Amino acid sequence: MTDARLIDGNLFSAKLRETLALHVQDMRDRHHVIPGLAVVLVGEDPASQVYVRTKHKRTVEAGMKSFMHTLPADTPEREVLTLIEGLNDDPEVHGILVQLPLPKHIDSQKVIEAIDPSKDVDGFHPINVGRLAAGIDAMVPCTPLGSLMLLKDVLGKLGGLDAVVVGRSNIVGKPMAQLLIKESCTVTVAHSQTKNLPEVVRRADIVVAAVGRPEMIRGDWLKPGCTVIDVGINRIELPDGTKKLVGDVAFAEAVKVAGAITPVPGGVGPMTIACLLRNTLVACARLHHLDVPEV
Amino acid sequence: MTDARLIDGNLFSAKLRETLALHVQDMRDRHHVIPGLAVVLVGEDPASQVYVRTKHKRTVEAGMKSFMHTLPADTPEREVLTLIEGLNDDPEVHGILVQLPLPKHIDSQKVIEAIDPSKDVDGFHPINVGRLAAGIDAMVPCTPLGSLMLLKDVLGKLGGLDAVVVGRSNIVGKPMAQLLIKESCTVTVAHSQTKNLPEVVRRADIVVAAVGRPEMIRGDWLKPGCTVIDVGINRIELPDGTKKLVGDVAFAEAVKVAGAITPVPGGVGPMTIACLLRNTLVACARLHHLDVPEV
Repeated sequence: MTDARLIDGNLFSAKLRETLALHVQDMRDRHHVIPGLAVVLVGEDPASQVYVRTKHKRTVEAGMKSFMHTLPADTPEREVLTLIEGLNDDPEVHGILVQLPLPKHIDSQKVIEAIDPSKDVDGFHPINVGRLAAGIDAMVPCTPLGSLMLLKDVLGKLGGLDAVVVGRSNIVGKPMAQLLIKESCTVTVAHSQTKNLPEVVRRADIVVAAVGRPEMIRGDWLKPGCTVIDVGINRIELPDGTKKLVGDVAFAEAVKVAGAITPVPGGVGPMTIACLLRNTLVACARLHHLDVPEV
Repeated sequence: MTDARLIDGNLFSAKLRETLALHVQDMRDRHHVIPGLAVVLVGEDPASQVYVRTKHKRTVEAGMKSFMHTLPADTPEREVLTLIEGLNDDPEVHGILVQLPLPKHIDSQKVIEAIDPSKDVDGFHPINVGRLAAGIDAMVPCTPLGSLMLLKDVLGKLGGLDAVVVGRSNIVGKPMAQLLIKESCTVTVAHSQTKNLPEVVRRADIVVAAVGRPEMIRGDWLKPGCTVIDVGINRIELPDGTKKLVGDVAFAEAVKVAGAITPVPGGVGPMTIACLLRNTLVACARLHHLDVPEV
């Protein structure tokens, strides 16, 4: 049996960002509008700092404006809310992203609900969550949106396929399930309390793993030929002390059974930022009543 | 084998309405507050008129105030929206229900989004849909809420059980799936494009049928001993010309296989209105910053 096809998220996201850059150029030329993304970082979490820097870089590369707001870890909640109110009113800002997690003294839900839903490019505001669940035009969270793009690229139409989403987080698992229901998959949401998880996973034509547990899903849990989207990014230490990034799926085993699989890194990861830029472009078009590019 | 236990929605809802009436009495005595429900009916659809009359009767019986607004079928959308704005501002009104379907010239989604989310006792406003999906306190749609109450009454804790929801409507299927995920069931959403539906249904400890197709789900699709919640209410004509209400499940067959099943009528149906009153009581308590009764 041949190994699974590797789903190249680096390549796909690079092409997507090129397409977005062309749309940005066009919007600037024809309408004198430049999409702008504001990123708010509170505190000095090293992983968050890396993410935020990459977002800034990609935003600028796509020809968009990037507004970085870095606040000290002890910033009072009230100040964060005031900053967001300002960004809501700023005509140069079309997308607002607050880097999570926030320091413990700040109520994340309150901050998320303070963002103007039309600028909520992370898709976490209850209005956008609700619109997605109701099947109305919404800002869709970036990681599930990127995962769906990869699935459609590999499989074409998804209607009638059996999909299992392992994990029920608000950021990935639940919106992913909504998107797959909308695509007419038969969708099962599995999680830590699921009995016979291997058996549940083995039924699926599409497996989306989003649990945050290194290599939990084994090769012999998979239906031969299925498509695997591995959302997990886990840093593990090998016996010799070196560190390594692995997904939620045991890749070396899975690649021998699946029909197609995303590697970690280089699979879903790069799609998230590309979809953030995509959402910013869409938000900008809607706010300026321009045609929304189909990307 | 003995027949399935019948889940008596008439009895359960009557008890629930008694409990609600006691809370209403208490709220009136201790806080001089009377929960009020406003129902808006546009047009003369006979089924809607029956529902609305029953809602009015049950509201008054529970000791709540009932405000009926019946408008002619050709009422302009603008007038409906103005009426809702008035109800949003009316301190005597704690719950607002717009009877669906609305006449075709009125945009239902626009009307639903015009209702103050804190008075949205149907739970259809995107904010409430999103809060439910995010697992935050929300107004939960009445039919799935009533179905969940019956399930908990029969089964106790639901964690780890395999549940199948057949149907993916915004009113029943999708919110039902959210509620069951929150209860830690492994939830599969099936629908018209599902392949091998009998096999999917046969895996389930809990089957919720909400497709609106008379007796579609057969007895031999069920796992012996499972619990069946039949949300369907279909009016069919028998060969002799008489009319009869049936569910989405072939009851005569299913009752011989299931462990427990809701009849139609007398199962889920009466729970819907009881949950509407429950949501009105909860909305009233929240709006007046009183303790929210746990019902």
